[in-house]
Amino acid sequence: MFTKYLDHYEVGETWVSRGRTITEADIVHFAGLSGDWFPLHTDKEYAAKTPFQERIAHGLLVLSVASGLYQFGVGIVIALYGMENVRFTNPTFIGDTIHLENKVLSVEEKPGDRGVVTVLQEIKKQTGELVCTCTLKIMVKKAALVEVE
Amino acid sequence: MFTKYLDHYEVGETWVSRGRTITEADIVHFAGLSGDWFPLHTDKEYAAKTPFQERIAHGLLVLSVASGLYQFGVGIVIALYGMENVRFTNPTFIGDTIHLENKVLSVEEKPGDRGVVTVLQEIKKQTGELVCTCTLKIMVKKAALVEVE
Amino acid sequence: MFTKYLDHYEVGETWVSRGRTITEADIVHFAGLSGDWFPLHTDKEYAAKTPFQERIAHGLLVLSVASGLYQFGVGIVIALYGMENVRFTNPTFIGDTIHLENKVLSVEEKPGDRGVVTVLQEIKKQTGELVCTCTLKIMVKKAALVEVE
Amino acid sequence: MFTKYLDHYEVGETWVSRGRTITEADIVHFAGLSGDWFPLHTDKEYAAKTPFQERIAHGLLVLSVASGLYQFGVGIVIALYGMENVRFTNPTFIGDTIHLENKVLSVEEKPGDRGVVTVLQEIKKQTGELVCTCTLKIMVKKAALVEVE
Amino acid sequence: MFTKYLDHYEVGETWVSRGRTITEADIVHFAGLSGDWFPLHTDKEYAAKTPFQERIAHGLLVLSVASGLYQFGVGIVIALYGMENVRFTNPTFIGDTIHLENKVLSVEEKPGDRGVVTVLQEIKKQTGELVCTCTLKIMVKKAALVEVE
Amino acid sequence: MFTKYLDHYEVGETWVSRGRTITEADIVHFAGLSGDWFPLHTDKEYAAKTPFQERIAHGLLVLSVASGLYQFGVGIVIALYGMENVRFTNPTFIGDTIHLENKVLSVEEKPGDRGVVTVLQEIKKQTGELVCTCTLKIMVKKAALVEVE
Repeated sequence: MFTKYLDHYEVGETWVSRGRTITEADIVHFAGLSGDWFPLHTDKEYAAKTPFQERIAHGLLVLSVASGLYQFGVGIVIALYGMENVRFTNPTFIGDTIHLENKVLSVEEKPGDRGVVTVLQEIKKQTGELVCTCTLKIMVKKAALVEVE
Repeated sequence: MFTKYLDHYEVGETWVSRGRTITEADIVHFAGLSGDWFPLHTDKEYAAKTPFQERIAHGLLVLSVASGLYQFGVGIVIALYGMENVRFTNPTFIGDTIHLENKVLSVEEKPGDRGVVTVLQEIKKQTGELVCTCTLKIMVKKAALVEVE
Repeated sequence: MFTKYLDHYEVGETWVSRGRTITEADIVHFAGLSGDWFPLHTDKEYAAKTPFQERIAHGLLVLSVASGLYQFGVGIVIALYGMENVRFTNPTFIGDTIHLENKVLSVEEKPGDRGVVTVLQEIKKQTGELVCTCTLKIMVKKAALVEVE
Repeated sequence: MFTKYLDHYEVGETWVSRGRTITEADIVHFAGLSGDWFPLHTDKEYAAKTPFQERIAHGLLVLSVASGLYQFGVGIVIALYGMENVRFTNPTFIGDTIHLENKVLSVEEKPGDRGVVTVLQEIKKQTGELVCTCTLKIMVKKAALVEVE
Repeated sequence: MFTKYLDHYEVGETWVSRGRTITEADIVHFAGLSGDWFPLHTDKEYAAKTPFQERIAHGLLVLSVASGLYQFGVGIVIALYGMENVRFTNPTFIGDTIHLENKVLSVEEKPGDRGVVTVLQEIKKQTGELVCTCTLKIMVKKAALVEVE
Repeated sequence: MFTKYLDHYEVGETWVSRGRTITEADIVHFAGLSGDWFPLHTDKEYAAKTPFQERIAHGLLVLSVASGLYQFGVGIVIALYGMENVRFTNPTFIGDTIHLENKVLSVEEKPGDRGVVTVLQEIKKQTGELVCTCTLKIMVKKAALVEVE
């Protein structure tokens, strides 16, 4: 996914990523990196009294880890353009392993050498449960008429 | 922001956060935490040849740091419900200092003890430039009729 | 605590913080940040043969995490002035959750726009056990006669 | 320092440590580990308007780095017993290199196999300026009559 | 490199990786992760008096970063089997950007489903200087006669 | 080991280090620092289906942690010169504690003020199992005729 030029995506094509286990260390790192120490993520005693019963990963940690499960083609991907309809539908607990299931929703040419690929990104865990869904817009290059260099 | 119950937000009210400087260390951490080593973020030589001319922060790093600039009231905030219309409008460079400028867009009651506050979240840097805009939906508690802790 | 001007503290007033769980990752980080790899903190086999029977958190990790459980008012707090009588009275194990219980001991005016608030800081864990006690001196601003800006 | 048994310290003996440079990354790490994001440490724009004119290291970061400049003898050191008279006397800026200059103040036998060495710990930077002074109490073992094992 | 089965390597084939800039934060992290605080890597004042005149990256940091510049095919790569003739030929300074230039030296079948690909791995910086050379042995799978699964 | 001048090593002398427990956090850090996210190290579900049945430490993490178990004498050690015959002979799992068992293989004078000490470095875990063996070449100073420093 995102290792090919705009011209080579087809609406409806799908892609599944490798997985990554969300560890206690990841949650601690993310709290430290973001500065978000909300006790649902960082206080075991507090979390035990919530409906979740244990600490859960930050939603943005889940999204961030997801972003690292892609391969972004160097010379192909230009930028993360935007996200739509981000919803966190189930908690990710310590020890859960997440992966991506994507589907191409649209391929839009833009003026010049680029365009936008829009994909439905579903983040699921080892049980098949959906933990986050969103629409991701990535700006990529068109295949050059003649690839020089 | 997000330190008060649902009932106490008013549509149109605004809030400005403290700032935080995005350092080279933050970008290195985020690459390591997310697994996203795209060379625009991690290769000085590569970045020098792009229109940005230097390394830029990952979009999700900017969003993650933004999430840590809030104060989330314990016993008040329930969850990050979702995000809409996330757009990255300008690059954040090493040494830029970002802060939030928020405006309440809507306050919706939900059945039971909760509701959703929707805010326009603008992430700006020290120059006033907008680097990211999005709509954030946070689920918070209603004020209890009688606060018994 | 420490979100108000010098004039607004009263001797004897108390404050209790949120909690934070000390994880194995925190101990590993602190060893890496401080450079203190004493095996009581970092070698499970060694620790098993000590009276503690397992790895314990560094005393300065406990103090450092405690410092992050405060809210330091921007424009109010000037500096950490000093600490007295720091004693580590019980070990903090991996998985323990610590919080602060503070009491104001004195409020001293200094010449000019500032003064020193001295608090007894007790760090306790979920069981109520005291793990560290100290006297903390924080330099804060006096309330201005007229708050401009 | 702290690589020998109680019996082998003499009041008045001194010791100088190697140095370590405090980097921007160290301050970012410490903010993330402790949760203390006070803008004097993490916001370049804010710090520029204070008397310090730039970001300074957290006092507890300085103390923590200092603790890693010791060599703690395995089988000799039992615990950090306590600290007294901790004072932060000058700011540590990004790029400053700190080291320790210590002097033994007292050597006290305790019942059983141990005792307490009290040292004056002065943390200085490359310019010779004192950044932190404190009295440190370390519990160490007595030399066994006959060293078996 | 290392995204294909044993059968598909040819002696003499070459491969060049993307680059990654070695930052001060990377050196600080590696000191913290490895526990190697030798002052040539962590003390600016000390380093200034050595022939290198500034801090240099740890040799094992350079090798570790190099290992992350590969793509290891999931279902293809079995293990890092070994390294030979590791030599550090030039210092890597803060801000240098390193990449890999590899050449396949041999392809050996082993009994069963696997074999060993031996490559000459040269780590070079943006100037073309060689900073580390070694021979790397990676165990990979043979292409199955019929690829099922 | 490596705290004395070239002249003071004898072929055949041995040395055993303290230990360090390899934690899940160490593996997560190393993946983040190196960029090597191979799922055998970072995906619990994937690892469960391999012959190892659980996540294992990266070989270079094991070597890096080993490098931090030495004491490198300041003013004595000049550089890590090279490594030979690095072989990873058994997996290191989360929770294993490793230490070094070294033997001096040769002591070679070089022109000028230096020479190379070659040691067999065996990394073993708490069970006595060998996890990595290699030959390490460290460049150290000769004892000066008269130590004037």
